[in-house]
Amino acid sequence: MPELSKNQETLLRSLYTRHGRKKHNLCVCEGLRCCREFYASRPDLIEFAVSSSDFDSSRLPGPDFMVVPADSFRKISSTIETQGVLIVTRKPDFLSPEEAPSAPFILVLDRISDPGNFGTILRTAQAAGLNEIWFTEGSVDPFNNKVIRAAMAVQFTLRLREFSSLEKVSEALSRFHYGTVYRTDPHFGKNIFREKNIFDRSAVILGSEGDGAGELPDSIPLTIPMPGNAESINVAQAATVILFEYVRTLNLP
Amino acid sequence: MPELSKNQETLLRSLYTRHGRKKHNLCVCEGLRCCREFYASRPDLIEFAVSSSDFDSSRLPGPDFMVVPADSFRKISSTIETQGVLIVTRKPDFLSPEEAPSAPFILVLDRISDPGNFGTILRTAQAAGLNEIWFTEGSVDPFNNKVIRAAMAVQFTLRLREFSSLEKVSEALSRFHYGTVYRTDPHFGKNIFREKNIFDRSAVILGSEGDGAGELPDSIPLTIPMPGNAESINVAQAATVILFEYVRTLNLP
Repeated sequence: MPELSKNQETLLRSLYTRHGRKKHNLCVCEGLRCCREFYASRPDLIEFAVSSSDFDSSRLPGPDFMVVPADSFRKISSTIETQGVLIVTRKPDFLSPEEAPSAPFILVLDRISDPGNFGTILRTAQAAGLNEIWFTEGSVDPFNNKVIRAAMAVQFTLRLREFSSLEKVSEALSRFHYGTVYRTDPHFGKNIFREKNIFDRSAVILGSEGDGAGELPDSIPLTIPMPGNAESINVAQAATVILFEYVRTLNLP
Repeated sequence: MPELSKNQETLLRSLYTRHGRKKHNLCVCEGLRCCREFYASRPDLIEFAVSSSDFDSSRLPGPDFMVVPADSFRKISSTIETQGVLIVTRKPDFLSPEEAPSAPFILVLDRISDPGNFGTILRTAQAAGLNEIWFTEGSVDPFNNKVIRAAMAVQFTLRLREFSSLEKVSEALSRFHYGTVYRTDPHFGKNIFREKNIFDRSAVILGSEGDGAGELPDSIPLTIPMPGNAESINVAQAATVILFEYVRTLNLP
């Protein structure tokens, strides 16, 4: 059975920082369910896997775990209540900027910095059958360990693209013939439940909870009606309403 | 300016535990936006308010703050990145079991134990205009400080009722003439986007993410179609789809 080296331990810790992930092009997937989902989709990306001596490895057959004492595992884990299993993985290759999207619409996340929100949106998009998510600089790193946990590792199979600004997003949308651009707004705009053909070669931009989406000329404001007169809903909830409004239009049996 | 006493400091710490909240019938609302929302809706419930010496009190006019040094504030705060403001409040009175609900449908949360999910569901329900939420024993305490933060303090205005079991929920639903009971299931059941009159004197039960909703005789399974073949979505996302499917049926302008 292989043993975790001092170098690997140091490497692991560095992967909890953005700098470390960038330097090594690696990231950490942690927790039973998250590792299971990851292993089911992208086992080819595994660099090494570590489990705690009190982890029952029959719960996750497949990876060749390095087993470390429970005390040592707690020290390399990023969570307080560890589940005793983590996988260090390579990041998937980014898409070439020339590769055209095939999705009916594109969800654009503009500077969403909360890891839980960002990850939950990715997970929900995958469930809704949308595989193309774009995001702008100023967003949290999609391969941050907290984002991976919240997303249940779906970022390893989704098509993610990063842009330096909304203007660059807009240019790419035109180039790929996504003609209509909606910008969500908590207070006014077209009612998402009444607007027709929202998801037909379009993009929907969601902004950070504090500031909302950035301005973009010619974008159409889109709003989710809130009869309870709340100030707003959480951005991951707004994304969910949009994504499942799309699912509703599919008219599934 | 009043000063925080040792007794108040001890009291505050105890309110981060379920036992302490029960004993004192008090709870803690923390963070600028959460305190602001709370103060706008139920200022009558305030026991005392504390701010950090580096908090700009013009950002939250109203409460008579006890100002403590920034170092001391960090010690009484429950969060790592404190915003320098918290309010100790009485819990609102529970509804009498005889008081009939007026809501078109009732959302039932069955043993949802994650504070973030529980709070987000409350906040989203309030935004959707639904004011009646029932929950079963085994759920997180709705007045847990993490739940209050995630809910932006809407639990102080919603109508919350706790039941010891789903059977007791079922009895109460019959008594108040809520005839149809839906039980959400991630895998099968009536398609939420096709079923008619879901929100007409009914109840929709959501279960914990691990186990799903408990069994209940005569309940109708209800499912959210997921074209992406995901195992499931987060329970707060499922609640959001249901709540905004309700909003859609209102046909707002």
